[in-house]
Amino acid sequence: MGNHVIILAAGQGSRMASDTAKVLHEVAGFPLIAHALRAAEALAPERVIVVTGHEAAAVEAAVAEHAPEATCVRQTEQLGTGHAVLQAEGALAGAEGQAFVLYGDTPFIRAETLEAMAEAPADFAVLGFEGDPAARYGRLVTSGDVLERIVEWKDADETTRAGTLMNSGVLRGDVQAMLQLLREVGNDNAAGEYYLTDLPALAASRGLTTHVVRCDEAETLGINTRAELARAEAAFQARARAEALETGVTLVAPDTVHFALDTHIGRDALIEQHVVFGPGVTVESGARIRAFSHLEGAHVSRGATVGPYARLRPGAELSEDVHVGNFVEVKNALIAEGAKVNHLSYIGDADIGERTNIGAGTITCNYDGVFKHRTVVGARAFIGSNTMLVAPVNVGDEAVTGSGSVITADVAAGDLALGRARQVAKPGLGRKMMERLRALKAKG
Amino acid sequence: MGNHVIILAAGQGSRMASDTAKVLHEVAGFPLIAHALRAAEALAPERVIVVTGHEAAAVEAAVAEHAPEATCVRQTEQLGTGHAVLQAEGALAGAEGQAFVLYGDTPFIRAETLEAMAEAPADFAVLGFEGDPAARYGRLVTSGDVLERIVEWKDADETTRAGTLMNSGVLRGDVQAMLQLLREVGNDNAAGEYYLTDLPALAASRGLTTHVVRCDEAETLGINTRAELARAEAAFQARARAEALETGVTLVAPDTVHFALDTHIGRDALIEQHVVFGPGVTVESGARIRAFSHLEGAHVSRGATVGPYARLRPGAELSEDVHVGNFVEVKNALIAEGAKVNHLSYIGDADIGERTNIGAGTITCNYDGVFKHRTVVGARAFIGSNTMLVAPVNVGDEAVTGSGSVITADVAAGDLALGRARQVAKPGLGRKMMERLRALKAKG
Amino acid sequence: MGNHVIILAAGQGSRMASDTAKVLHEVAGFPLIAHALRAAEALAPERVIVVTGHEAAAVEAAVAEHAPEATCVRQTEQLGTGHAVLQAEGALAGAEGQAFVLYGDTPFIRAETLEAMAEAPADFAVLGFEGDPAARYGRLVTSGDVLERIVEWKDADETTRAGTLMNSGVLRGDVQAMLQLLREVGNDNAAGEYYLTDLPALAASRGLTTHVVRCDEAETLGINTRAELARAEAAFQARARAEALETGVTLVAPDTVHFALDTHIGRDALIEQHVVFGPGVTVESGARIRAFSHLEGAHVSRGATVGPYARLRPGAELSEDVHVGNFVEVKNALIAEGAKVNHLSYIGDADIGERTNIGAGTITCNYDGVFKHRTVVGARAFIGSNTMLVAPVNVGDEAVTGSGSVITADVAAGDLALGRARQVAKPGLGRKMMERLRALKAKG
Repeated sequence: MGNHVIILAAGQGSRMASDTAKVLHEVAGFPLIAHALRAAEALAPERVIVVTGHEAAAVEAAVAEHAPEATCVRQTEQLGTGHAVLQAEGALAGAEGQAFVLYGDTPFIRAETLEAMAEAPADFAVLGFEGDPAARYGRLVTSGDVLERIVEWKDADETTRAGTLMNSGVLRGDVQAMLQLLREVGNDNAAGEYYLTDLPALAASRGLTTHVVRCDEAETLGINTRAELARAEAAFQARARAEALETGVTLVAPDTVHFALDTHIGRDALIEQHVVFGPGVTVESGARIRAFSHLEGAHVSRGATVGPYARLRPGAELSEDVHVGNFVEVKNALIAEGAKVNHLSYIGDADIGERTNIGAGTITCNYDGVFKHRTVVGARAFIGSNTMLVAPVNVGDEAVTGSGSVITADVAAGDLALGRARQVAKPGLGRKMMERLRALKAKG
Repeated sequence: MGNHVIILAAGQGSRMASDTAKVLHEVAGFPLIAHALRAAEALAPERVIVVTGHEAAAVEAAVAEHAPEATCVRQTEQLGTGHAVLQAEGALAGAEGQAFVLYGDTPFIRAETLEAMAEAPADFAVLGFEGDPAARYGRLVTSGDVLERIVEWKDADETTRAGTLMNSGVLRGDVQAMLQLLREVGNDNAAGEYYLTDLPALAASRGLTTHVVRCDEAETLGINTRAELARAEAAFQARARAEALETGVTLVAPDTVHFALDTHIGRDALIEQHVVFGPGVTVESGARIRAFSHLEGAHVSRGATVGPYARLRPGAELSEDVHVGNFVEVKNALIAEGAKVNHLSYIGDADIGERTNIGAGTITCNYDGVFKHRTVVGARAFIGSNTMLVAPVNVGDEAVTGSGSVITADVAAGDLALGRARQVAKPGLGRKMMERLRALKAKG
Repeated sequence: MGNHVIILAAGQGSRMASDTAKVLHEVAGFPLIAHALRAAEALAPERVIVVTGHEAAAVEAAVAEHAPEATCVRQTEQLGTGHAVLQAEGALAGAEGQAFVLYGDTPFIRAETLEAMAEAPADFAVLGFEGDPAARYGRLVTSGDVLERIVEWKDADETTRAGTLMNSGVLRGDVQAMLQLLREVGNDNAAGEYYLTDLPALAASRGLTTHVVRCDEAETLGINTRAELARAEAAFQARARAEALETGVTLVAPDTVHFALDTHIGRDALIEQHVVFGPGVTVESGARIRAFSHLEGAHVSRGATVGPYARLRPGAELSEDVHVGNFVEVKNALIAEGAKVNHLSYIGDADIGERTNIGAGTITCNYDGVFKHRTVVGARAFIGSNTMLVAPVNVGDEAVTGSGSVITADVAAGDLALGRARQVAKPGLGRKMMERLRALKAKG
C-alpha cells in the first residue's frame, strides 16, 4: 500500500497580477509546480495527481514536462479546496494507501517533514507551523498532538485567533477514507464552497484520529505576490550558496551568484562575481567560472575556464582545460580537450577538436534561414580570426584558415584555406576622403 | 494666486570632494537638481526659480534640460540662505500667491508633504522631522503646531538641543511677505550671513503665524557626501523595486536590478538578474529582459526578448516579439515585429523589417568618420553572418546576403547579394606553416 | 636592531575541502599569504620567513611572486605551532631585535595593531581580542595588561572558559629569546605537539614579562572554511567601498562593485553598477567606468570612458578621453588620447594612435598559432568596421581601411587600403533559395 499525492494547482493567484497561472511562475529556474512535484518525490508516490484549473492547458504542459508520470485532472468550477481534492476521485479509483494533499504554490516543503507526516500515529495528519499571532491563517485547535478542528481566521473568535499554531493546509490520510469524508463535506457557508479544512472535524465525528505535525513556517511559505516570489527565490539562493560553500566551492561574492534548482558544482571549482546558472548546468572540480558568465544546459569539465562574459547555452559541452570567454557564445557544441575560443565568437551546432584554436570573431554559420547545419573542426587546427564556417562544413586536423575567410567547402587535414581579396592600396585616398567629408560638414 | 518655487542650488558641497556641483551628482540616472525640479511639479508652480552659484553654468544647463520653463538666478556671493532666496526677488517681481523654498540637494520630498504645507492654516509653514537627539540639525521650538523659532544647533542651549524636532529648511509663505521679511533679516552673527532661519521669529514679531508640518526624515535626507549619495540611490532603488513587484513585474533578483527615475515596466514583464535601466526606458507587458542587459532610451514591445548581454542605446525601438541578445548593441534603430538580432552584432541608425533575420557578427557601418548614415533592411530578409552593411544602403524584402559580404550597393528585393573571395586550398601548407613556426620557437 | 617576521603557512586547512593550500585561496584578488606579507610590511622587517608545509612548492612560488625578499623554510612534519616557528631558526641565525609571529590565514591585522605590539612595555607581547564567551578559542589569563598564561579551550576549566579575552596567536618577542624558549617547550600533551602557546608561561618562569595587546576580532579573523573566506572577502569589499566613497569616488551601487587589494581610483571617478576590478588597476580622476566592465592590470586615464561591457586585460593602457566599450576587449595595448574602440573589437598587442577611430568588429590578429605580434596604428586613422589587422602590421597616420578588409601589408600614412571582393547581385536568387529550403522542410 503506497503513497499518493494530490497537488492543488487550480488557483488563479490574482495577487500576482499576472496572466500566467501562479504555479507557472518560476523560482530557481523552474516553475513552482515543478518544485512541488519534486517535493512529492520524497514520498516515492504510486500516483501523482495535479488538480488544474486556471490556465489549465499551460499548467498541464508544465506537469507533462517535469513529471510525465503524473496525471492532471481539471477543476472546472472553483468550489473550494475540498471540491478540488475530489476531482482526483477518478484518478484514484482503486488506489490503496495514504494520500497527501500538497499545494502547487508552497513548493518548499522538506522531505523530512513529509516523512514525519507519513509516520504520525493517527488516521490523518495535518501540517501546522508556529506563526505570528497577527497572521490571518486558519488556526489548528489541538489537545497535545491531537487535532480537534481547523478554524478559518475569519470564523475564529478571539481566543482561537490568539493561538499561534497555523494551518498549512497540507494533509495526509487513507486515500479512500479521505475521498469518502470529502463527499460528505457540505458547502453551508458564506462562500458556498467545500472546504478541505472541514475534514478533520468530520473525521473525529467518525471516530478517526488526526494528529498535528509541525514544520518551520519557511517550508509552507505560500507565494501569493511577486514580492513573495522574489523572497522565495532569495531564500532558495541563500540555501544554495551556503551548500556550495560547504561542499568546497569558492564563491568570491556569493550574493552575486545565482543557481538553478539542479545546478551541480564540483569541489574546488571557483565561481567569480556576477554569474548566472540557468537550468541543467554541471561544473566539474577545479573549473573556473569567471565574472559575468551565463550558463544554461551546459557541462564544464575539470580545469576548464569559462568567461568573463561567456554565454553557454544548452548543449554546450566543454571538455577538460577548455577556455571559452570574452564575449563568446557556445550552443549545442562539443569543445574538445584543451581547445580555445577566446574572443567574440559564436560556436553553435559544432564539434571542435582537441587543442584547436578558434580565432577572435569566428562564427559558425549554422542557420540557412530554415535548417540548422553542423560544423566539424578537427584537432590542433588553427582557425584564423573572423573565419566564417558556413555549415555543413568540415575542417580537418591541423588545418589552418586564413583570417577573414568564408569557408564554404571542406578543408582537408593539414591544408591552408583562404578566401580573401587581395589588399589594394589607394595612395593618399584615405586622407582625401576624410578631407572631403570634413569640408562637406563645414559647409553644413 | 498660484504657487512659486525657489530651489536653492548654489552650494559647493565640499564634503562631496568633487569638482562637480553637488546638485549635478546623479541618483537614479538623473542629477539631484532634476529630482528637485520634479518634486516641485507637485505644486503646479507658476514660476520656478533656481538659485545657482557654485559651477553655475553647468547647473543652469541641467535646469534648462530638465525644466526649460524654470528661471535661473545667480548668487555670486555666498552670504547665507536668506541672501540666496533674495536673489529670486527680480524673478518674482509682481508674483502673487505662495512661495516654497526647496533645496537642490534634498530631492526626495513627497508630493503629499508639499500639499500639507500648502494647506497648513498659518501665514508661514516650516517643514520639520523627528530626528536623533544627537543630530546637529537646527531645532524647531514649537508650542503645539505653532513654530516659535528656529535655533541653529551651534546656537542652541542644552534644553533646546534635547528637542528632537529638526528643521528641514523647507518653508512656505506669501511670496511678497517672504521677500519683504528677508530684506529685514540681518547678518549680525558670527558668520556674517543672512539666515533664512531667522524668518519665522521675524514673522512672529510682525504678528504673522508659522506652523510646523512634519514629514519623515527620509524625505528631507540631505546629500552631503558620496556615501549619502549612494544611500539615496539605494533608497530610491528599494522603492522602485517594490513598486515594480506590486504592479505585477517579476524581478528574479530585485537587488541586482537598477532602475532610473523614469523607467516604465509593464505588468507581466520579467526582469532577470543584473539588469541596468538608464533613463528613458519603457518595457511593455510580457517582455522579457534577460540577465546582464543594459538599456537606455529604449522601447521594448510586448513579447520581445532582450538579452542576455543586450545593449540597447537611445533610439532602440524593439517591436513585438523581437529577439535581441548575446552581445548585441542597438542604437537609434527600429527593429520591426518578429525580427531577430541574436549574436555579436551592432545595429545603429537602421530600420530592420518584420521577421528579418540578422546573422551573427552583422555590423551596420553607419559612420564614415564624419557623418552617420542609415541602413534600411526590408521584411523577411536574411542577412548572412558577418555581413557589413555600409550605409547608406538599402536591402529589399526577402533579399539574402551571403555571409562575410561587404554590402556597399543596394540589394533589390528577393536578390542574393554576395561579396566574397573564392575559397582557395593550399594543400599541406597549414601544417607546414605551423611546423616552421614551432621550429623557429624551438630555436629561441 | 630591527624587526623580523615569521609567517606560519604550513597548515592544510582541511575544512576548506580543497586541494589547494589554504593560504593560496584568494581575497580581493590576492592569495591570503600575500595579504599576510603585506601586513608584515608595516613592521619594515629585516627578515621575513614563511614556514611552509602543505603544498609547500605552490606556497613558496606565491611567496616568491609577492615578496621576493622573503625566505621560505619547510616544516616537513606537522608537530605544532612551536615546532613551526623553530623551523625559522636557521633563517634567523645571527638576527637581533624583535620577532613577530603572524599567520598566513589571518591576513587582516592592521599596521596600528602591529605597532602597538612593537611598543608594548614587556619582553613579550601577545595579541588578544574580546570574543563571544561561547567561542572555542584559547583564553588569555591576565592580570591587568600582564599575561599570566594562555589556556587552550579544550584544557580550560569553566572559570577560564567564562573569560572573553581570546588568544589570536600573534606574538612578539626578542628573536633569540623566543627561539631559545621554544627549544625548551615540550610536547607532553595529548596531541604530542609543541605549542607556541606554552611560551608565555615559560617566559614568566624565567622572569620575562608578557603583555597583552588588544585588537578587534575582525583583525584576527581566521579563515577556515569557504564561508569564512567569502565573509573575509565581503568585509574587505565593505572597507574598500567605504574608502572609495570617502576619497570622492562615486559608486552608483557600491554593493555591486568589487575591488582588488591594490585598486587605485581617483577622485571624481564614477563607477557604475556591476564592475569588477582585478589586480593591478589604476583609474584616474574623472574617468567613468560603466556597468558590466571587468578590469585587470589596466590603467585608465583622466576623462576616459570604459564600458559598458569593456574587458580590459593586463597591459591595457588607456590615455585621456579614450572610449572603449560595448563588447570590446583590450590587452597589452596602448590606446592614445582621444581614440575610440566602441564596438565588438579585440585589440591585443597594439598601439593605437591619437584620435584614431577603430570600427566595430575590428580584430588585431596578434597570434599566428605560436608567436604574438604587434599592430601599430597611427594617429587620426580610420579603421573600417570588421577590419582584420594581421600582425605584425603598421597602419600610418590618417590612413583609412575599408570595412571588411584583411590588412596583411603595411598601410602608408594617408592611404586607403582595401581588401574586399566586388559585390555581386544574383537577381531573385535569395527568394528562390529560401523557397526551396522551405519546400524541403515542408516535405519533412
